Parts: sequence; structure tokens; C-alpha cells
Amino acid sequence: MSSESVEDDCLAWAARDPSGVLSPYKFSRRALGKDDVSLKITHCGICYADAVMSKNKYGDSRYPLVPGHEITGIVKEVGSTVSNFKVGDHVGVGTYVNSCRECERCNDRDEVSCEKGAIFTFNGIDTDGSITKGGYSSHIVVHESYCFRIPDGYPLASAAPLLCAGITVYNPMMRHKMNQPGKSLGVIGLGGLGHMAVKFGKAFGLKITVLSTSISKKEEALCVLGADNFVITSDQEQMKALHKSLDFIIDTASGDHPFDPYMSLLKTAGVFVLVGFPSEVKFHPASLIIGMKTISGSVTGGTRVTQEMLDFCAANKIYPKIEVIPIQYVNEALERMIKNDVKYRFVIDIESSLK
Amino acid sequence: MSSESVEDDCLAWAARDPSGVLSPYKFSRRALGKDDVSLKITHCGICYADAVMSKNKYGDSRYPLVPGHEITGIVKEVGSTVSNFKVGDHVGVGTYVNSCRECERCNDRDEVSCEKGAIFTFNGIDTDGSITKGGYSSHIVVHESYCFRIPDGYPLASAAPLLCAGITVYNPMMRHKMNQPGKSLGVIGLGGLGHMAVKFGKAFGLKITVLSTSISKKEEALCVLGADNFVITSDQEQMKALHKSLDFIIDTASGDHPFDPYMSLLKTAGVFVLVGFPSEVKFHPASLIIGMKTISGSVTGGTRVTQEMLDFCAANKIYPKIEVIPIQYVNEALERMIKNDVKYRFVIDIESSLK
Repeated sequence: MSSESVEDDCLAWAARDPSGVLSPYKFSRRALGKDDVSLKITHCGICYADAVMSKNKYGDSRYPLVPGHEITGIVKEVGSTVSNFKVGDHVGVGTYVNSCRECERCNDRDEVSCEKGAIFTFNGIDTDGSITKGGYSSHIVVHESYCFRIPDGYPLASAAPLLCAGITVYNPMMRHKMNQPGKSLGVIGLGGLGHMAVKFGKAFGLKITVLSTSISKKEEALCVLGADNFVITSDQEQMKALHKSLDFIIDTASGDHPFDPYMSLLKTAGVFVLVGFPSEVKFHPASLIIGMKTISGSVTGGTRVTQEMLDFCAANKIYPKIEVIPIQYVNEALERMIKNDVKYRFVIDIESSLK
Repeated sequence: MSSESVEDDCLAWAARDPSGVLSPYKFSRRALGKDDVSLKITHCGICYADAVMSKNKYGDSRYPLVPGHEITGIVKEVGSTVSNFKVGDHVGVGTYVNSCRECERCNDRDEVSCEKGAIFTFNGIDTDGSITKGGYSSHIVVHESYCFRIPDGYPLASAAPLLCAGITVYNPMMRHKMNQPGKSLGVIGLGGLGHMAVKFGKAFGLKITVLSTSISKKEEALCVLGADNFVITSDQEQMKALHKSLDFIIDTASGDHPFDPYMSLLKTAGVFVLVGFPSEVKFHPASLIIGMKTISGSVTGGTRVTQEMLDFCAANKIYPKIEVIPIQYVNEALERMIKNDVKYRFVIDIESSLK
């Protein structure tokens, strides 16, 4: 891979230590390779992973750390063999920027499950040994295989959260065949992921129940997002009324919570999809065995299903609900996100504010 | 339902209290209804549930308790509208003897998941209010819908364990499409259920790894049952070599054990089926989320899949490995079963010994 580069041409904001506080930073991207697309970043969504990694919660953060894996922008240059993109195209980059491109999973365009491990968009070690740096930056150079076409007319700000929050729920919804009108879906947690699960569920014709710990979300869930039902999970009567009534549940909550009460809401052969990240999953075996229930995990999705989702969102006019902010507000936004004080995703206007 | 009966015509062995010790007992079966089959019981398998319920482990045992839900025998009488069975037929009865026969599940012949609850073969409360009594008895009267045809020439002693142990593994194996030659299956626990999983797996053309805590089972697993691989789960090196190599795992162990080490053996999108009954299921969410893995529970099966399994066993000459005992040995057998001291299922020769 070419290592020629223009010195420190990339503006960014980076965390420098486990305080997780971000501040301006400059570095250089790799020079454009023949298969690469160079992207002027216009927007980057703020994902929970950005805060987790900035604060070194997994103990493997490499500083300076430039977060961001919900990236959209405009192609400013393409390598000599790039065939799918041209200068001026609207393009997105999600949670990974490289993989082996040889294994069965990569060949099936499910690169996120690459047998040698997908290279994550930030804090990953790329094949050239460099540490990947994410979308809180002015531009990025990415192999064309990991770039997505943003459909014509779809706002780049709105497209950004689709590339992690959106695909994280869309992928398991398709895999578990939730696109069956009339079936019932419970959504646990109404944040960046949960509100997209409601939107996809509506588009699929599902009957949607939002399961929440907070009554404050009721009006929004029913009147704005269009859920059919809203249940406070601490209300035993409401939970009892839902017993064995749901075909599917998507659990987007990252806080710890019991699983047995939710699993009792599933019909026979019901499917519980875990996309949140609690500290552990624990339940009684009867919750799984009686009624042949299933718990399945999922994490984002490969390039095939991600492009499919982007096209589906454009065709069905599905847009994440976002709060657009300048990069200078990013530290406050990260803290507000941790407190669930956002409806429902922050998106950084990189183009206008990172100068 | 007719309540006419011949007084105390049914010989049996029953537990009288939570000691779980069984002793001879007499009671009456209901008189034959128009839809009923009356079965002279020849054999009954000994299932772990028999010990659990005899000892009141769930706190809902109703004494005197006659265990047994792996029942085979010969039809001695049929009701006026019975069309599927005639006197002299070889018939089996499994873990349930009644259900609503009206719900979607019953209509789909998945009666074990009946929306109103299947009536279990022993210690259940039947629709007439009586407490069901199982197969450690000389005869049983059962609605024909819950009787299975034992294929011609298939030994009645061998057929008995299929009706709980066999169907408990066959049903999820079919549901999760394990009948794909060349795929790999891990079997946790080599008892009544586990050894049937190996036998079905062989018939499906799977590559089978037995995962065991005891080296004593190695020769039997490889040389007698024909497993391809045997791994001691405490051996870190062996476990590491299996990392991400299995398409499926069936967990038949009822003792407590960690789940994360086993889940790390699954390939991407691998499926872990739980049919054992530990005190809890606990794992790290990454074990499920990374690699989009699935844990699914299962319990026996409906009449459709049970009959299919019986026919499959006959066609493929699959026979459980059994130790046939007289009813007088049942208390010792229950204790030996609890200690896993049986290869692999006790079957009581009711016909010869219960007099």
C-alpha cells in the first residue's frame, strides 16, 4: 500500500486520554491507492461506541483516538481502478474500512463477519499497521469495497446514522424475517437504534410496542414515531397483558436489565434479538425452552445488506431523527448521549464546522 | 368424558412422597371414550423428569405420582370413532396426552406448544380434572390424537426412549436445518439425549464432536457411537483448536456449566440449541453479538414431527442404546440415572415384570 502522504492535511478532533475529552488534532491520511476513494467528509453521526472507545472502556484504546463510524461525504478523488464511484458522488462509510476480501464471508459481502476480522473504522489496526482514524475528521481514504452509495436526494446528514444505528437493527430484522406485515414487534429502548427499529417496523407493516422504563417517551413513541403501543416495563399489569403476544423483540438497551420478563412476552417460537450491550445476559432456561424461543445477537451488517438498507430508506422515505451539531459541541453531545438526552442521534456537521 | 371405570384395574409403581421412592400401586384408568385408544403397556423409558417429579423438585408433584412418558405398547381396545388405530397395533405415547385441539399450534400438530397448554402424561391435570398417571403402569387410555404408530418391526423397547429423549433432540435438529451433510455439530453431554443427537447427526451426514467433561466416554463416543471427534472441555488446547469451527451445538447437559466457552466454538451465524436444564443460562453479550450467534430452546415436539422421527428411525435403522430392566429395579435405576451411570437409557420391561 502506498505510504506517500501530504503531511498533516487531515483536520480532526481526537481524544488524548481516558478522560475521553476531544480536542482539535491534525494528522495525515494515507495517499490514494488505486482501489481507494478519497472522501470529503460532510457529516458524522455520534455513536455510543465513540464515547466508549474515547474513554478506553475496553482497555484497548489507542490515543490520539479519532472516533466516528457513521460517515457521509462527497467523493473528491478516486484511484485508477475504482469503478463504482466518481468525483462528486455522495458516499457513506460505516463501521469497517477493510477485511480480507478472500474468505467465504467477504465473498458473500458479509465483511463484518470476515474470518480474519474486519478492520474497524477507528481504533483498528489496518493491514499496513496504521491505526485507523474515524469520521470526526475532514476527509478519509477508503478502499472502494467499503464505500456505500447514498441514494440521490437522500440528505447526507440523515444518511450518517444509518451506517451504524440503522444497519444494526435493519440487518437482524431482515435476517429473522421481520418484514411480515401484521406480525408484532417489541422494541426495548428508544434511542438511536430503537427509534430506527420503530421506523423500519412501521415500514414493514408490523404492530409495534415500545417497551420503556420511562413514561417521558410515551407521547413521542406513539404520536411522533407512530408506535401502536407503549408499555412501562415496571408496570406488572401492562406487562402481564402483553404475555405471549409478540412475534419479535429487539433489545437495544445497553444498561443492565432482566431478560426473563421480556422473554415471557414472546409467542411460541418467538425471536429476541440482542443488539444492545449489557454487562451480561442471564435468564432461566425455561424462558428459552418452554415455547421454543430464540435469542440471537447481531452487530451492524455487511456491505450487501447495508447498501440494501440505504436504498430501502430512500425508497420508503425513512429518515433517522437527528440533532445536527457543530464539531465544537462534540464533548457536550457525547455527555448528553450517555444520559440519553438526545432525540435520537447527534450528527456532526463536519463540512461547516471543522475548519 | 365418560367416568365409568373398572375399579383399580391398573397396576403401577408410584412415588408417595418427596423421597421419590417408588412402590407398587393400583388405580383405575378412565373408561374408554369414543376417541380413545386403550394400550397395554409393554415398555416405558426412564427419563430424568421421572426422578425430578418423583422427588417434587419443582414443588408441584401430586402424590401418588406414577411417572413415565416414554410409553410403548399394544392396542387392546379402541373407541367407536377411532380411525387410525386398531387392536394389535404397536403404539407409542410421549410426554403429553391432551391439548385444546383448537388453537393454531394444535391445528399445526405442534400440540406441545398448545396455547392453552398441553396436558402432560403424568402429574398433569387433565380436562376432566383427574391427575394424569404415566407409563410405569400396566395400561393407559389416551385420545388417539396423542398416540404414535410404531413402524413395523421396530422393537417396542427401543421405540420407548424416542418419545422423549429422541424427539427432544430431533425436533430442534430439523427446525434449525441440521440435516445438511458436511456441516459440523458439537454435542454437549453424552446421556440419553446426547447419544441420540450423535445418532441423528450421523444419519444426517454431520461431522460430530462430542464435548464432555469425562475422558471415560471417549472410546464409547468414537468407537461405538461413531463420533468424529471427542474433546475434554477442561482441556484449553483442545477447546482452542475448536474455536469458531462448529455450525451447531446441542447442549443436553442438565448440570450447571459456563456458556461462553462453548459459544466461542460456533462459526459466524452458528446455532446453539439448549435442551438441557441448568439452573440458569448466563453469558457475555459479546458471545452472542460478535458473529451473529443464536441460542434457541426446545422441548420435545408435536405429533407431526414425532411421527416423522419414528419413521425416520425405522427407515435409517437408528436405535437408542438401552438397558432393559424389570420394574422391581426402578428405584436403583433412577439413582443410577442421576449419577449418569447408564448407557444410555433405562427401559422398563413392563409387560414381563409388572404383574
